[in-house]
Amino acid sequence: MSAPVLPVRPAVVLLSGGLDSATVLAIVKAGGFAPHALSVDYGQRHRAELAAAARLAGVLGAVEHRVVTVDFGQFGGSALTDASIAVPADGIAPGIPVTYVPARNTLMLALALGWAEILGADDIFIGVNAVDYSGYPDCRPQFVQAFEAMANLATKAAVEGRRLRVHAPIVNLDKAQIIALGLSLGVDYAQTVSCYQADADGSACGRCDACRLRRDGFVRAGVADPTRYRETPAG
Amino acid sequence: MSAPVLPVRPAVVLLSGGLDSATVLAIVKAGGFAPHALSVDYGQRHRAELAAAARLAGVLGAVEHRVVTVDFGQFGGSALTDASIAVPADGIAPGIPVTYVPARNTLMLALALGWAEILGADDIFIGVNAVDYSGYPDCRPQFVQAFEAMANLATKAAVEGRRLRVHAPIVNLDKAQIIALGLSLGVDYAQTVSCYQADADGSACGRCDACRLRRDGFVRAGVADPTRYRETPAG
Repeated sequence: MSAPVLPVRPAVVLLSGGLDSATVLAIVKAGGFAPHALSVDYGQRHRAELAAAARLAGVLGAVEHRVVTVDFGQFGGSALTDASIAVPADGIAPGIPVTYVPARNTLMLALALGWAEILGADDIFIGVNAVDYSGYPDCRPQFVQAFEAMANLATKAAVEGRRLRVHAPIVNLDKAQIIALGLSLGVDYAQTVSCYQADADGSACGRCDACRLRRDGFVRAGVADPTRYRETPAG
Repeated sequence: MSAPVLPVRPAVVLLSGGLDSATVLAIVKAGGFAPHALSVDYGQRHRAELAAAARLAGVLGAVEHRVVTVDFGQFGGSALTDASIAVPADGIAPGIPVTYVPARNTLMLALALGWAEILGADDIFIGVNAVDYSGYPDCRPQFVQAFEAMANLATKAAVEGRRLRVHAPIVNLDKAQIIALGLSLGVDYAQTVSCYQADADGSACGRCDACRLRRDGFVRAGVADPTRYRETPAG
């Protein structure tokens, strides 16, 4: 008697190349989905994360990896897309920092939504986190829920009775929990790039908010930090 | 005594280059806003509409016109982005046609949202219409409302207490009413391109759904149709 063949459900996974989205890709794969990984080139200064995303898609078993280019950087307005605005390096301050990119997650989810519909996928995964994060409004659970509600009015699939789900599986985990989960799923965090001003080879500044949140996560998880730093990291 | 100087409120207006969005731009201008016009190059086969958008932004008094390029066409899935899928020419059929582009209005509104936040604009205008339309789900009022609700959770501006509004001023007008309104505001519809397979010079096929809806609108409005057709239009 042969084992029953379960249908593999396609899912779209937003993959930035950072620690969080790599963990999400591993979760999606472990959950039995066929992950289609999507990265967005929106003019971010940390280009190394896109190269990391391509590598991670391969090693973590994505069915395919696509990069959509959006020339959103022409509008400026963020330290991540406008070289004239410095990335803060003095520690995490209260409020929403200048690294906030207006409507970035709305844009990325819109692209994921379109691709999901073309693929016939009913599931989109995004690695937003509202615990150890920079205070970006579009990382909060209520934003994800509102996007899902909108998406279920936006598409032909929804009109035809299919229900799209936007999953944020690590939204309520702290960084140490995310790292522990990812390690249990075999994620090699040395291949991820979180730094907002990473070098072309992926080495990190150790000073920006993303570096600080990441480094603190490894410390609290009690595991060695595999990040390559350009100099001794802060803290 | 000098007249009081009223502050001019910036607004982002999605401008495809077609009849509907040109009318909306005229409405926004007449309403006293400073319109910032946004077109999206998503790989649509009817490139002439982008050229029309640039002209219309100028003649209708937009403050500026930007084109954002998104290489969404790589995914295919629509007759408007995939040359291997024919644009229907036999009349408007029931259901959502193959010219539907998955998540197109979600994507365009996401880009408008990001730009609005950078500009400090609280108002976005989109020329969707749910009367004389092709049945696209993302042209319905409930979609626009759901996007607005999501947008008000997505941005730094919203967190800081500003309220963003997504206006769809022609959503409940029929095509003849839209044309009559636009003419009263001085829109020269000869400069607009609606055809899904317009030639580079903007001349129309007269057969696709967009041509049929447009032509019927001029007939019902009782005004001459200024569209340049490649051959005698259907109907």
